[in-house]
Amino acid sequence: MGLVVQKYGGSSVADAAGIKRVAARIAETRRAGHDVVVVVSAMGDTTDELLDLAEQVSPLPPARELDMLLTSGERISMALLAMATANLGIQARSFTGSQAGVITDSAHGRARIIDVSPGRIRDALDAGDVAVVAGFQGVSVDTKDITTLGRGGSDTTAVALAAALGADVCEIYTDVDGVFTADPRIVPAARRLETVTYEEMLELAASGAKVLMLRCVEYARRYGVPVHVRSSFSPRPGTLVAGSMEDLPVEHAIITGVAHDRSEAKITVVGVPDKPGTAAELFEHVAAAGINIDMIVQNVSAAATGLTDVSFTLPKADGQAAMTALSQVQGSVGFGSLRFDDQVGKLSLIGAGMRSNPGVSARFFKALADSGINIEMISTSEIRISVVTRDSALDDAVRAVHTAFGLDASADEGRATVYGGTGR
Amino acid sequence: MGLVVQKYGGSSVADAAGIKRVAARIAETRRAGHDVVVVVSAMGDTTDELLDLAEQVSPLPPARELDMLLTSGERISMALLAMATANLGIQARSFTGSQAGVITDSAHGRARIIDVSPGRIRDALDAGDVAVVAGFQGVSVDTKDITTLGRGGSDTTAVALAAALGADVCEIYTDVDGVFTADPRIVPAARRLETVTYEEMLELAASGAKVLMLRCVEYARRYGVPVHVRSSFSPRPGTLVAGSMEDLPVEHAIITGVAHDRSEAKITVVGVPDKPGTAAELFEHVAAAGINIDMIVQNVSAAATGLTDVSFTLPKADGQAAMTALSQVQGSVGFGSLRFDDQVGKLSLIGAGMRSNPGVSARFFKALADSGINIEMISTSEIRISVVTRDSALDDAVRAVHTAFGLDASADEGRATVYGGTGR
Repeated sequence: MGLVVQKYGGSSVADAAGIKRVAARIAETRRAGHDVVVVVSAMGDTTDELLDLAEQVSPLPPARELDMLLTSGERISMALLAMATANLGIQARSFTGSQAGVITDSAHGRARIIDVSPGRIRDALDAGDVAVVAGFQGVSVDTKDITTLGRGGSDTTAVALAAALGADVCEIYTDVDGVFTADPRIVPAARRLETVTYEEMLELAASGAKVLMLRCVEYARRYGVPVHVRSSFSPRPGTLVAGSMEDLPVEHAIITGVAHDRSEAKITVVGVPDKPGTAAELFEHVAAAGINIDMIVQNVSAAATGLTDVSFTLPKADGQAAMTALSQVQGSVGFGSLRFDDQVGKLSLIGAGMRSNPGVSARFFKALADSGINIEMISTSEIRISVVTRDSALDDAVRAVHTAFGLDASADEGRATVYGGTGR
Repeated sequence: MGLVVQKYGGSSVADAAGIKRVAARIAETRRAGHDVVVVVSAMGDTTDELLDLAEQVSPLPPARELDMLLTSGERISMALLAMATANLGIQARSFTGSQAGVITDSAHGRARIIDVSPGRIRDALDAGDVAVVAGFQGVSVDTKDITTLGRGGSDTTAVALAAALGADVCEIYTDVDGVFTADPRIVPAARRLETVTYEEMLELAASGAKVLMLRCVEYARRYGVPVHVRSSFSPRPGTLVAGSMEDLPVEHAIITGVAHDRSEAKITVVGVPDKPGTAAELFEHVAAAGINIDMIVQNVSAAATGLTDVSFTLPKADGQAAMTALSQVQGSVGFGSLRFDDQVGKLSLIGAGMRSNPGVSARFFKALADSGINIEMISTSEIRISVVTRDSALDDAVRAVHTAFGLDASADEGRATVYGGTGR
């Protein structure tokens, strides 16, 4: 008996059969005595079809109108889902993001949620109805125009509504069984995690794990919303994202999992004068182009020349823009040349316990060395070690590290338990 | 230099090419210096596709959710039309019915417009932008839920916005060239009318002319909105619906045109006791079933039996419900039997001038008699004569009457001019 927010993605409601299956799940939750708020994405390929229509009428559609167009996708899925739920004898009412009180800024296509005023949702719940809410969308506080939240927007809508309504749990239904110790397509022995802290999930999401978007985890952490990631195709429990690593028991597993990311490229600025302010000038220009940089490495300066090389990683899609921005300052900064490399991959080892276990990085680098994998860049946080390798070596690297930390399912059942003080 | 409201139907925006063609027309109107408000329907078959989806998930979808679903159709077309217009260098902003201030009652699927508060449309016009508004939809004043206006809803949206904004004209773009003296598919010699009064257009619409819905004409008449019905495929002027017949010159044509209607059926109640209150009881039961009756005829009672027959026409789609309602009162009313006949057609002759020209009905009935057409029911208004015939005789009847009143294009050019006092 509590308040449950459930989010279903586009693949779960791709057709009438999927919608009916989701409706049955909603009805079951309601019949169990819970108040239910459902957040739904657009059906399957709807968004792509709408984008295709837009392209046919305009090469560069205004962002306001593109948001108006795309939000019709959730309008269709939410109305159909409310109908299918009503058909099972459970009263359901659908609400647009605007009606649900999802207030955003005016950045069309990538709006941020500023506030949630779910008065109408509360009314529907008080009347005993299920509320079905359009994910991915809101209304601008300034212009009252319809906005979309961009990637991961529906998950964020669900977590934001759960926070505003004080829900007991936010269930994110997806096509996998939860969060795994590694991508099961690369590591067949990967295991589902029963629980993971917000901090660990943040690092996993930032390191390429696609099951939850970073912004959604950030929102959940800020408001302390327990997020249950689970499969819409099975009744089994998934992974609960909750709790801070500060509260973890001492015997908590050191290592949570291994994430990998093929979405980044590496740019190297060759022959940069090694004097104060040069790096700042370079990265100011890249930032001014609206590009987020991930890892940065600066080599030791060659004494003879006073020149150094600076490498950084960034989303592949931003590569062209970054190269253009850097070329424009080649004269003023005085560097030699630029190299672009999109054949790289990133591997990250994440675990809340690693901050108090000094042996982790040694074991990590030994595992990579034993497999003959060359490391091109390294970066670390308190609970993460990341390396950049050749793209072609990435899968082997993931498997090697997964095995080295005892994460393989054959070693044990349930969560990987590699405790500290075991001689590393 | 004025304010023009333009309405484009689903067939005008059926695909990307249609949307671009409409956008070009909008841009042309804006470049001519006019303020432009555009009302648009859903693209081509969108509504049918959405209804099909609804049917797949629920046999009897809740009306509120069906409205939510269907309104996504205009959301798509209006956003695409705004994009296509912007692509031609004309700033355009799309608005849902709710955003445009179309306030309705709560009758989902057939809501009535209660008020129009077009503050955001006015703002867009003041900024020099074209406003593109979703037709067919509004928001309930009581529940704040999204509603649809039912058949002819987009035309009504356009006229209501034109009235609220004080527009100079409301242009209804369609796939025909305007209002004709008869359906050109039946009468190839039918001519386009240049102007027609509200009263005549009301009678035409009520008599089966499909170019404008009755409710739209009623709205235009009440607020004095000039309505220009024209083709979206041609730059030629169409038909202007404006002015009252009270203001017509004496030499105005007597006859406006001939309308026909195949959408009705005839029910005959046989052997009804001919005493006060019996007809009232019959029609109360039909009305209680929510059925609108059109023509009613009661035969002279047979002196020997004290019984009479009562016939009436109604929409074919309501036939089953009416027969059921009447069957339930057979015992209490005491009639003999019921007959249902859907092989009937209705022909109507309409003209503001006929009220002061007594020869019209004589010529009308002679034309039908000369063509050997049997008349089953008759009803008249001040400016209309309607008869019910066999469905199979209807086309011949329409042609005979059209010719008899000199409406055929070969006789004269432009509007039919059959003046009074010419010996009829």
